Order: sequence, then C-alpha cells, then structure tokens
Amino acid sequence: MPKTSAFRVIEGSIAAPSGFRTAAVFCDIKRLGTGKGSNKGQKRDLALIVSEVPAIAAGMFTTSQVCAAPVKVSIKRVAAGCAQAVVVNSGNANACTGRQGMKDAEEMTRATALALGLKAEQVLVCSTGRIGVTLPMANVKRGITAAAALLNPSFENAQQVTEAIMTSDTRPKTVAVEFKIGEKVVRIGGTCKGAGMIQPGMSPTGTRPASGLHATMLGFITTDANIDRTVLKGALETAVAQSFNRVTVDGDMSTNDTVIVLANGKAGNIQVSARSTKARNTFQTALNFVTLELAKMIVRDGEGASHFVTVRIKGAKTAADADAAARAVANGALVKTSWFGGDPNWGRILGALGASRASLIEEKIDVGYSLPDAKKIIFALKKGQPTRTSFKELCTLVANPEFELHIFLNVGKAEAVMYTCDLTEEYVEFNKGDVSDPASMGG
Amino acid sequence: MPKTSAFRVIEGSIAAPSGFRTAAVFCDIKRLGTGKGSNKGQKRDLALIVSEVPAIAAGMFTTSQVCAAPVKVSIKRVAAGCAQAVVVNSGNANACTGRQGMKDAEEMTRATALALGLKAEQVLVCSTGRIGVTLPMANVKRGITAAAALLNPSFENAQQVTEAIMTSDTRPKTVAVEFKIGEKVVRIGGTCKGAGMIQPGMSPTGTRPASGLHATMLGFITTDANIDRTVLKGALETAVAQSFNRVTVDGDMSTNDTVIVLANGKAGNIQVSARSTKARNTFQTALNFVTLELAKMIVRDGEGASHFVTVRIKGAKTAADADAAARAVANGALVKTSWFGGDPNWGRILGALGASRASLIEEKIDVGYSLPDAKKIIFALKKGQPTRTSFKELCTLVANPEFELHIFLNVGKAEAVMYTCDLTEEYVEFNKGDVSDPASMGG
Repeated sequence: MPKTSAFRVIEGSIAAPSGFRTAAVFCDIKRLGTGKGSNKGQKRDLALIVSEVPAIAAGMFTTSQVCAAPVKVSIKRVAAGCAQAVVVNSGNANACTGRQGMKDAEEMTRATALALGLKAEQVLVCSTGRIGVTLPMANVKRGITAAAALLNPSFENAQQVTEAIMTSDTRPKTVAVEFKIGEKVVRIGGTCKGAGMIQPGMSPTGTRPASGLHATMLGFITTDANIDRTVLKGALETAVAQSFNRVTVDGDMSTNDTVIVLANGKAGNIQVSARSTKARNTFQTALNFVTLELAKMIVRDGEGASHFVTVRIKGAKTAADADAAARAVANGALVKTSWFGGDPNWGRILGALGASRASLIEEKIDVGYSLPDAKKIIFALKKGQPTRTSFKELCTLVANPEFELHIFLNVGKAEAVMYTCDLTEEYVEFNKGDVSDPASMGG
Repeated sequence: MPKTSAFRVIEGSIAAPSGFRTAAVFCDIKRLGTGKGSNKGQKRDLALIVSEVPAIAAGMFTTSQVCAAPVKVSIKRVAAGCAQAVVVNSGNANACTGRQGMKDAEEMTRATALALGLKAEQVLVCSTGRIGVTLPMANVKRGITAAAALLNPSFENAQQVTEAIMTSDTRPKTVAVEFKIGEKVVRIGGTCKGAGMIQPGMSPTGTRPASGLHATMLGFITTDANIDRTVLKGALETAVAQSFNRVTVDGDMSTNDTVIVLANGKAGNIQVSARSTKARNTFQTALNFVTLELAKMIVRDGEGASHFVTVRIKGAKTAADADAAARAVANGALVKTSWFGGDPNWGRILGALGASRASLIEEKIDVGYSLPDAKKIIFALKKGQPTRTSFKELCTLVANPEFELHIFLNVGKAEAVMYTCDLTEEYVEFNKGDVSDPASMGG
C-alpha cells in the first residue's frame, strides 16, 4: 500500500468509479466446437465496458507497423476524444486479417452500439489472441447481445471482464483507487491482461515516437473524474510512459497493445483542467499508480517468470542512453537466464551494457543489488571492478523473488527504469510451437 | 561440399597450410585444484598457433564497449600488420579485470615470445571463459612453456588446439580448403569456438561501425598465401561481414569476440595484391567459404539448439532496414520458441517484423519456407494474407532440423541474411545461473 495521502487503494476494478457497468460472456471465439481451434477449456471470451453517459476517451496503441484491425479502428475513434463503450474479445487478435478484419472490427462496434442504443462511433474495440484468422462474427454478435443483457456495476461482473480478456495470464489483474478533488470523491479503476509478447511501446496515435520503443497487453481504465479531454490525453501519455512502456517480459511488442481510459465525469468534481495544477497533479499521481501497479502485475505474471526484477540505470549521458542500457539488460537472454538460477552474474550484465548503444566507460560502472525499495545497495562492482562483497551475500539477495538491480554509469545525469523478469524453461515450454494447433499464434 | 571449382575442401585445420605449427595443453586455468573454479572435467585450456616465419596479420574484434584486456592488446598488435604467434586460453576471459588484466594479457605475449624466441610485439593473445577473475598467471606461464615444447604441424595437434578453445561447445569446429594461385597451391585453414553469447559485431579496430551490429566467439584462420597486408585486411572484413557478423544464437555480443588471420607466404605464390583481381577474387571466395562454414558451425552448435534457420530478407527499402528486419526475426524470443516446436508461426514473424525499425507495409509482405538451398519456396503468406498452403505442409518443412525462412518486404531492393537457431529449454537450463559456481560467468 502506498504511503502517500494523495489517494487510497480500494477494493474494486473498472466498475469502482460511478456510472460504469460491465459484463462478460463465453461466446466461443476459438470455435472449440468445430475442432478448428484450441481446446484449453471454456472461459469467458467477450466483454463490454459501458459508461452510463458519454465519456471523454484517450488511448495509447502499439507502435508496431503490423497493427491489428481493432487497433486501427480504435485509434480513429479515440481521435474524436469521446466514447461510451468498449467491446473486447480474447481468443482471436483480428490481426493480419486484411480487409475482412477491418470490416469485422467495425461490425463489432456497430453490433455493440445497436445492443446499447449508441452510435458505432461511440464504441471502441480491442482483440487479443490468435493472429491471422478471421473472427467468427456470428459468435461475436451473439456474445455482444448476451453481454449487453448482463451489464451491471458489480465487482463480480468486473472480475468476469478481467477473466474474459485473459489469455496466457494466470492471475486476474485489477486495481482501484480513490482520492478527493475539492470536496468530491473521485475514483479510478483499472484492469489489464498480458503475460507474454510483452514489451509495449505505445503512442497516442500508434505512430512511433522519435525514440522508438517497444506485449500483447490490453489495459482498461475507468474514472468518474470530470476532466478536460486534452488533460486526460496528456495524463495517460505520462502514465503509460512510466508504466506499461517500461516493462518487458520477452522483448516482443505485439500487434494489439492498447490502453484505453474513459472518464465520465460522474464524480461531479470541478473539471480538472490545464490550469488546475493541484487537481491535475492529484489525478496524475493516482493514474500513475494505477498504471504502474497494473504494469508490474503483467511482469510478475510473465510467462514462466520466477523473479521480478527492477533495473535502474543512473548517471547515463542521455535519456536515450539510459533507456538503451536499461532495455539491453532487461532483455538480455544471458542476464535473464542467470536470474532464473538466482545468480548475481555481473559479468553478463556488463556484457549486455557493453553491447548496447548507451555510451559508457567500463572503468566507471558501479553495479549493485537491493531488496525492492530498499535504500541499502549491496555493490558487486565499483568502477568496473569486483568489490569485496561475498558472492554468497549477492546470491542471497538475488534468491529473493523480487529484487532491484542498480547500475550507475557515472557519465551523466540521465536515468531510466525497466521492470522485467527472468527467462525460464517454463517460458520456452509455454511458447514452443504447438503443431497440432494453428491457433497457438498469439497476438 | 561446394560445387565451385575455385577451391576444394580438404581434411585439416589451422595446420593444413605450410609453415604452421600448433600445440595445446591443460594448465588448469580454472584452478580446479583450489576448489575455487568449476569442475566440469579436465580438458586442454591453453594453445599456441605459430608460424615458422613472420606472417601478415589481420583481425576483427568485438565492438562491445566492455572489451576484454586480450582484445585491447591484440587490436594494438594487429595494427602493426605483422605477427608470428597466437596464444589463447579458455576458462577465463580476462575481461573486467582492470589494470591487472592488461598486465596479464601483455605478460602472456611476453612469456610466449620468450618460449619461442620472438618479440612480444609478434604475439597476439585471446581469452574466453569466466569474466571478472584475474588469470592464474603461474599456471598460464607453465602452460605456455609446455605447449611451446610440443609444437608440430600435425592435424592431431591442431585438433587439440580446437579442444583447448572450446567452452560450451559440444563439437570441434574446423575447416580447410586449397586452391591455386598461378601454379602454386595455396591453403586456408580455420578453427573457431562459440555456442552461446553469440551475436558478433566485429570491426577491425573494435570501434563500432556506423550501423552498429552486434558471442564469445574466437576464430583463427591460417593461410600460406603470399598476400598484401591491406588486401588481407580488406578480405577479412568482407569475409567476416558475410559470416560471423551474420550469425546469432541468443542476441548477446561478447566482450571477447575475435577473429584473427595469419598469412605466412609459404605457398610461394605471386603476391595477391590490389591489382591482381583474379587472384584476389579466388582468395576472397575461399576465405568467405572458410569463415561462413565456421560461422554456421557455431549456430548449429548453439547452446540447446535443435533447428538451424537461415533468415533471408529481400525487398527491403535500405540495407539497414534489411539488417534490422533480419535481426528482429532471428532474435525474436517468440519466433525462436515457435521453431523449437516445429511450428511455422508466421503471426509471430509478422509481429517481430512490425516491431523492428525496418520500414514495411503489412499488405505487401510475403513469407515462405524452403529446405536449405532449395529453389522451391512454400509460401505461408502473400501480401500479408495467409495462402491456401496447408498448415500441415508448412509444419513438415519446419520439422526439418535445417530450413530457410524467406521474407519479401516488397518495398525496395535491399537484402540481408542471418543464420540463427531456435530457443529451447536446454538453452535456459544450460545458462541458468549456477550459484555454487561464480566461475559460470561466460565471456
């Protein structure tokens, strides 16, 4: 639990804020019956997230050049800044599905609008699952109609939405907070999915930023805050930059990564605007927390992961250098396998740093480990040379399921952090191709 | 066996060319006796490669910014363009060892020079093995003296050199060819080591080229060709660019990657010079073959590898794009794990391409598979859309231990190739940290 008084964590998920109703159903997206899909067990696979009133919307989308149809549709819809519902399915990513895929994604929004009495333009759409297979639209439409009839604001329903978006996830991922703006209580709720194909690099338009970064991850955030559209957009960008865009499981960016926030104003607070510095900061702090908690849950649930590692780079020459160094270490196969064995292998860390694009001087590098959020760093290396710290002591630290790696390049002032996990045999076992199942292609 | 008449493959290794003598010994670089090192069994760990007469030398070295002491020493020595001996050890990389490391690397060349009656400046030095531990110099010197007494031109001795440089390698890697320049028979012999921490990006000076690329791999090439120094340097650069710098096992560039060629002129051919186009081409073709064969052996022996895959990118906009696309696919964790299962998962391939820096248009991409060097490509995707090829047919192809992946971006004319392998549970098992053994740190 955070020690800040700015917000408090509450039980709940995306239906915690006022005015949101959700529902999820099983509609057989994978067509288990036909023998064409995989048969990993029947689970909910389609969900609706609906605001009682039109909401301000913002989104961040994969910057992959191979981008799924629902992403293309939602980017266009979010650009208008307004939405009232999200329809989402798992089991099929509707990626690499050409013109039919675009038609289907649009049809999903039309069917949802019809079921809810909205316009298609007010509906956003997300998909995750197999790539390259078109959606079973009859099943999808049946699911939308069924889900629309079940909408309610219960925590139970919201948990079912979380179940419906899960693919390789082993745990549901939800968080909710509340805080005050003026005298009004405002809430933010969130849920997400993602465990593999994780190194998101999202931008508001799906186009790549100057420093192109790199899951299928889907994140849905709801809030009853009354907030200005531009402020919400900026707040989401800031929040994602320090959370979802700072995590990696396997270094693979997906075709479908999406984070959407809907703000419906039902809290009745004075509008959070560009000029209301205090309210803006309060909202940003809470949103940062919600997105970072969700992002960390993805890494902790990383396919096969047995260690959660925070990689902190300090003293880099430039921000791009800090980022490059952090990603090189966080994605290094030899670094990640060493952690699997609980081995504080600084040799591999230096190897990964040396091969990165970050400019550095070996003789200036300090490397240390600590427990999560601990102030005391145990140094393995100082100025590129092993310290007198015993190997055993370092091993004890790295044996923890969660620890932090601190790398001081000592050539500048830039910093970066990445949240990552180890690379295990279970990851390989999970992801090795299943030739009996063309549906195993994830997206 | 190649069908070209330009050269023929012969039995042999680095002692196949005239005037080279080699030897290898066990001198306990890992200090098995002290209980401080690992105990993976006693094997030769120090070798000498010696030319009877002063030779022209060229080298390519890791572009990692964390670069081992022997690399620094050899870069300096090779710059002079002349050498007569190479001393190499496994079991200790002499990397991240500071000033003591530099002293030790230089001392290795002095001890070798003393044993052989040469000057230290005529001796090159290479190391591979654990990082961050200084060399047991008494053992090293004992080894050098012992090896010097055993030097001879036999194939048996050359094979012992190959044994001495192996670390995680499961197979010795050697090749030799002969060809004619004028009326004279010229030979090139080579050996190398490397199985993990493999994605070399070597340059002649260890400084990074404009398009920074990315093993510990060591390669030693000998030839009795009489060749101009500048021509040899250029030829090695060309050869490495199309071989060692085009392979990846795990995307990790090492601190110690080195390829060295010694040309002693004992074949007595008319000098291969800048002006002798035909002789230059003949030499280049043979050297390209030797380096590519060795590079492929590294990938085939990749830690845990069960599939050898050639990734061919065609129709990229620029050479940098082609390279980026090839590396993205060849290093993609999800692509590599899918191959482990024998799964022709084009969804993950598109995912890796989309996340790369190569500019592409999803709707223009063709993806197909073939057997090695086969002309018939079986297409899985055309213009970004699945073909009618059955999943089974693709699976049959990918079930082969060796196959080629052909990706046509169809947006330009640039091409690139990468040789890679699958990512298996055995790789993870092999590389997971061993907390009982600080010596497991590779370099």
